[in-house]
Amino acid sequence: MMGAMTENRYYATHAETLDRALTAIRERDYWSPYPESPSPRVYGENAAAEGKAAFESYLGKPFPIDQPGERVATESSPFGIALDIAYPHTDVDTLMAHAQQAMPAWRDAGPQTRAGVCIEILSRVHANVFELANAVHATSGQAFVMAFQAGGPHALDRGLEAVAYAYAEQTRHPAAAQWTKPAKGEPLTMSKRFHVVPRGVALVIGCNTFPTWNSYPGFFASLATGNPVVVKPHPGSVLPMAVTVRYAREVLAEAGFDPNLVQLATDLPGGTIAATLAQRPEVKIIDFTGSGAFGEWLEANARQAAVYTEKSGVNTIVVDSTDDFAGMCGNIAFSLSLYSGQMCTTPQNILVPAGGIATDQGQKSYQEVADGIAAAVHKLTAADPARGVEIIGAIANEANLRRIDAARDHGEVVLDSKPLTHPTYPDAVVRTPLVLKQAADNENMFASEWFGPISFVVATDSTEQSLQLFRRIVGGRGALTASVYSTDEKVLDATEQAALDVGVHLSCNLTGGVYVNQSAAFSDFHASGANAAANAALTDGAYVANRFRIVQSRRHS
Amino acid sequence: MMGAMTENRYYATHAETLDRALTAIRERDYWSPYPESPSPRVYGENAAAEGKAAFESYLGKPFPIDQPGERVATESSPFGIALDIAYPHTDVDTLMAHAQQAMPAWRDAGPQTRAGVCIEILSRVHANVFELANAVHATSGQAFVMAFQAGGPHALDRGLEAVAYAYAEQTRHPAAAQWTKPAKGEPLTMSKRFHVVPRGVALVIGCNTFPTWNSYPGFFASLATGNPVVVKPHPGSVLPMAVTVRYAREVLAEAGFDPNLVQLATDLPGGTIAATLAQRPEVKIIDFTGSGAFGEWLEANARQAAVYTEKSGVNTIVVDSTDDFAGMCGNIAFSLSLYSGQMCTTPQNILVPAGGIATDQGQKSYQEVADGIAAAVHKLTAADPARGVEIIGAIANEANLRRIDAARDHGEVVLDSKPLTHPTYPDAVVRTPLVLKQAADNENMFASEWFGPISFVVATDSTEQSLQLFRRIVGGRGALTASVYSTDEKVLDATEQAALDVGVHLSCNLTGGVYVNQSAAFSDFHASGANAAANAALTDGAYVANRFRIVQSRRHS
Repeated sequence: MMGAMTENRYYATHAETLDRALTAIRERDYWSPYPESPSPRVYGENAAAEGKAAFESYLGKPFPIDQPGERVATESSPFGIALDIAYPHTDVDTLMAHAQQAMPAWRDAGPQTRAGVCIEILSRVHANVFELANAVHATSGQAFVMAFQAGGPHALDRGLEAVAYAYAEQTRHPAAAQWTKPAKGEPLTMSKRFHVVPRGVALVIGCNTFPTWNSYPGFFASLATGNPVVVKPHPGSVLPMAVTVRYAREVLAEAGFDPNLVQLATDLPGGTIAATLAQRPEVKIIDFTGSGAFGEWLEANARQAAVYTEKSGVNTIVVDSTDDFAGMCGNIAFSLSLYSGQMCTTPQNILVPAGGIATDQGQKSYQEVADGIAAAVHKLTAADPARGVEIIGAIANEANLRRIDAARDHGEVVLDSKPLTHPTYPDAVVRTPLVLKQAADNENMFASEWFGPISFVVATDSTEQSLQLFRRIVGGRGALTASVYSTDEKVLDATEQAALDVGVHLSCNLTGGVYVNQSAAFSDFHASGANAAANAALTDGAYVANRFRIVQSRRHS
Repeated sequence: MMGAMTENRYYATHAETLDRALTAIRERDYWSPYPESPSPRVYGENAAAEGKAAFESYLGKPFPIDQPGERVATESSPFGIALDIAYPHTDVDTLMAHAQQAMPAWRDAGPQTRAGVCIEILSRVHANVFELANAVHATSGQAFVMAFQAGGPHALDRGLEAVAYAYAEQTRHPAAAQWTKPAKGEPLTMSKRFHVVPRGVALVIGCNTFPTWNSYPGFFASLATGNPVVVKPHPGSVLPMAVTVRYAREVLAEAGFDPNLVQLATDLPGGTIAATLAQRPEVKIIDFTGSGAFGEWLEANARQAAVYTEKSGVNTIVVDSTDDFAGMCGNIAFSLSLYSGQMCTTPQNILVPAGGIATDQGQKSYQEVADGIAAAVHKLTAADPARGVEIIGAIANEANLRRIDAARDHGEVVLDSKPLTHPTYPDAVVRTPLVLKQAADNENMFASEWFGPISFVVATDSTEQSLQLFRRIVGGRGALTASVYSTDEKVLDATEQAALDVGVHLSCNLTGGVYVNQSAAFSDFHASGANAAANAALTDGAYVANRFRIVQSRRHS
């Protein structure tokens, strides 16, 4: 088969990268094959300009993808960039039929060939990473450098990580084995073959804020395990995944496979294509990032499929004491400010004893802690708007904007949110973070998620009560991140014990250049699947093992 | 902690066995640490008599297990053995509370200690394997040697296989890692810990026919990954799992753990404790073997849990041609006769071209093929009843008995089912297998499962039509096994292709001492999870990976 020969070339090209990734997921030290700095010294003098031009070439036109259906444009940029890109609205029956036609040859190609093709797709996207970064920037509202890093290299890292897990899982059993059982006379012997078979059509439902980072793991985990993938991007952020689908189809065709192994499912305005797709009997795998309500709907209704959801949670910081008060305030402030708190990993509740905390600057009252964090946020954001917008970006959608106003009435303002004018984009919707004080008995308010640039400094009776609140809220509502500040090993241990009990990843005493809302592929797990915020982790064995099955045959040999 | 020291002893004792099992699941050659022959040369002169005495010591008494609740006796033996063993009916709230209390110390013990304790439980059960075999024999209706092999060593093999998979999956990531990321100045460094945390309470719902073999994989997979296990045996076959629970609790206590990590949940007559347990919020994992109806109910309603079901299917043989007609008939006949076809892996439909098949004895007509299989079944069963009952055992329950009569009216009898008198047990309910001829257009009848000693020789237009039927029926209803007889590589390939498409394991040209209804642990997968008969396989990565989560903590180092 000509196809197979062509892909073996891709496997050979990328075997070393795959091998290195397999080592990385076992060792969990730092590693990345995709440089995170957009510097011309890394990517070349012309890369940024060429990528921007490539992005701009899409604007106001039909997107170059060969799928049937009327064309629809649904995006509007938080920066006010005019997009007007028209994507094909392919009907669901066609998507399903085309995906199923493409499946058998991809199944028969085997894990090695599929890994090679998947890594070639990642490489092709990486070769166009500035184009992708501009797409993420324009549609999500992330500042450019963040859009480049989170939407480009870090997303590619997570995609490669998924390919590595998928490859490891598919090859944990040999493709063939001899079986020899001692018997009274001649031994019984059998020759056995173990085939990896895909589950069916995989659906990836993307989100507005991290269109690539949150979609790549499911996309590549499903594709690498033999399943055709239908990508349903968020209507507000189509371009990043459209670009990805475009390059994926290009690579698949070059490798001799049907490009319909990867298809884009764009919705009509007000449409419900995600729900329709999710209940199709052909769809056997669904990856979703987004609201708790739709995530729970999928878990309840898409019963024919393995459903992986990342929903919402109440990320929490326990502040007990610190030997670096300035570092703590600065680190927390950056976590609250980055992308206007529109990360699923942004802290929301900061639990501080009402009696204050011990620090390297002496005892600090509850008010001083709240003020310290607020001052650090102000310094990062409103104090120098031109610099601030490069951290906070723009507000991704109306709902996040409205939520700021709704929150303001439910606590005492420590730092108010205010509009900033973006020096580059006059129509950008920019708001600085809102920080409120809360009494512990206002739990009904802060125990639910307030997505966006909204955080609460909660006055508790003691660190002990902080840990009780932490257990109750995270145990009930879930969380993707948690952190603790303490100089007391016993408090750190007690918090770690609580984190184990409620199943949330914990960061301790972050005061420097690592932030609680960041997780590094190949080393940190993102979400645990052990609390209500998500039913799976990026990435572990459980994330890939159910995406295929083994079917064996045996005969005497 | 004293407990931990004690179990490390168990790990040290069994490390070599674990290591060998880990090699076996990777290589998939024959291996077993539990000899399958009940011969006194293997197990010692007194083992059989002592095991029988131990079994008999349970009869007519309260079962020796320290759980609260009124005592209930629900079993009746297909051989007519008087059982009257009274098990505790512990209420559900108590089961849940005790399981949850036991969990944290077991979680904190870690994968290695848990693996050691689990293998010690297997060893303890193995040291009492004749007692267990008598329990399986008496309650399931399996002939003694089969009860010994399938209920003892083969079940223990599957249990150890699950422990090995669970251990491999939990240790695929290190327990701790250093992370060093190059930065402009000093590198960023973090020290990370990765904790394995259980999902919650695990429920194992057993079946009547294979009380240990079908329960051990889920039992040991859940326990080895840190989850307390509640065992809900079939009311007709409680003793085998009660014995298992007894020895498990004994080992856990010796190892310094709470014996309530393993509890027995016996139902009252006519009770619905399985459904009640399955919907408890504490229950996060369910393993079920049994009817399609309850399996589907669990999948639909036990939404808080990861549900692993083995339900029902329509196992199929495609007969195209053979170079060993006598061997084929004998092999098929044994598969139909063993334990009166009461295996989830017993073939039901034998698809034979109406125009006959080419064999080493010349062309054989459809009728001759049906007669050849029927004659071989008769020879194994009714021709010498004293020998026959050692193959067919007894009919496990009324439903299977009634089904024989119901089937007889829906086809042409090739070999009728008849009662046999058991030489040892005068009250045993024994029936020889029923073999019927079917026209291909009677598909509505034979396309559903007829569990028990009932099989159909279906006349098809051609092997091509046989494969179409195979695809349609197995694709729709599912199957645990399939086999094909052909001397033509093209037919074998086409059947293997069809088996891949419908996700069923295939055996080719079995004419000797391997039977389609047998699967060997460490080498053969049992069920695939790729068709309607089961949603998981014994055992692969997917079977264990969702039984725990990883929760990490990190701090600067």
